[in-house]
Amino acid sequence: MQYSIPKSLEILERTPAVLKTLLSGMSDDWTTQNEGENTWSPYDVVGHLIHGETTDWMQRMALILDENSDHVFKPFDRFAQFEESKGKSLGQLLDEFDAIRTQNLATLRSLNLHESQMDLIGIHPTFGQVTLRQLLATWVAHDLDHIMQIVRVMAKQYKEEVGPWVEFLRIMKS
Amino acid sequence: MQYSIPKSLEILERTPAVLKTLLSGMSDDWTTQNEGENTWSPYDVVGHLIHGETTDWMQRMALILDENSDHVFKPFDRFAQFEESKGKSLGQLLDEFDAIRTQNLATLRSLNLHESQMDLIGIHPTFGQVTLRQLLATWVAHDLDHIMQIVRVMAKQYKEEVGPWVEFLRIMKS
Repeated sequence: MQYSIPKSLEILERTPAVLKTLLSGMSDDWTTQNEGENTWSPYDVVGHLIHGETTDWMQRMALILDENSDHVFKPFDRFAQFEESKGKSLGQLLDEFDAIRTQNLATLRSLNLHESQMDLIGIHPTFGQVTLRQLLATWVAHDLDHIMQIVRVMAKQYKEEVGPWVEFLRIMKS
Repeated sequence: MQYSIPKSLEILERTPAVLKTLLSGMSDDWTTQNEGENTWSPYDVVGHLIHGETTDWMQRMALILDENSDHVFKPFDRFAQFEESKGKSLGQLLDEFDAIRTQNLATLRSLNLHESQMDLIGIHPTFGQVTLRQLLATWVAHDLDHIMQIVRVMAKQYKEEVGPWVEFLRIMKS
């Protein structure tokens, strides 16, 4: 499947509502547990998604599109959410993610990007040259990756409870 | 985390709405592609979840609870959805899943199961003896497993499009 902005928007605009439907009002037992040391809970993941909206996707897109910049991306802080989410409820984080995502997609739409811009280049701290198309496709896949992570972390809380069925549940081995 | 009916209901009652939020109105490009030969699309997965509601979870629970039965489970047909979903739109399947799940959870609640019943036994075609607790915990984990599958299948449609980021996206290797 080739990248297209309309198709990617179908996912990007649904993610905040998917996360609210999945997590709003749920017990802390499901939302604050993780998969073990140095892993994230659903609560942590939502904070990470907010940090991406405020510091990463739009900023990198702007660097690619700005003819007067050196196009060099800043490294992304994968641990920022542990500080930034402090004192906030999961409900607050879900609303915050929804608001900033809505704003970012409005900006994306307003840019009216055309196909010829999709091969413009940014410099990633690890990979070197990447294209705008790859950045925007990754934004989509990154949403899905973290929805996957959230349901995986929740499922693993029942790893013992499912008994022998653990063998049939791919999520327990992921 | 120990199995409890109230905690499991938090997931079981959300799944139909999560799937509707994620999939309703989405292009066929996202919902009818799979991961390759003999794998399922999001559309196939929703049909599989319906088949579980109509033939598996409640029927197996009833066999466990029925003192006059031999407690032997029928094998589950993992391919029934390919016949049963024929001619139905994804929207119809999502509504059907929502309706039958709602009905099944009403039945589950009406049984007022108590802790002493959770160790009652059924005979699984592969595993032999399993408990009611394990069956009910598996119902929950099975929902999460298939939400994971749906987002994984969608993400993989962009496996080429993300370029070098494929390395950072666990979902692409799952």
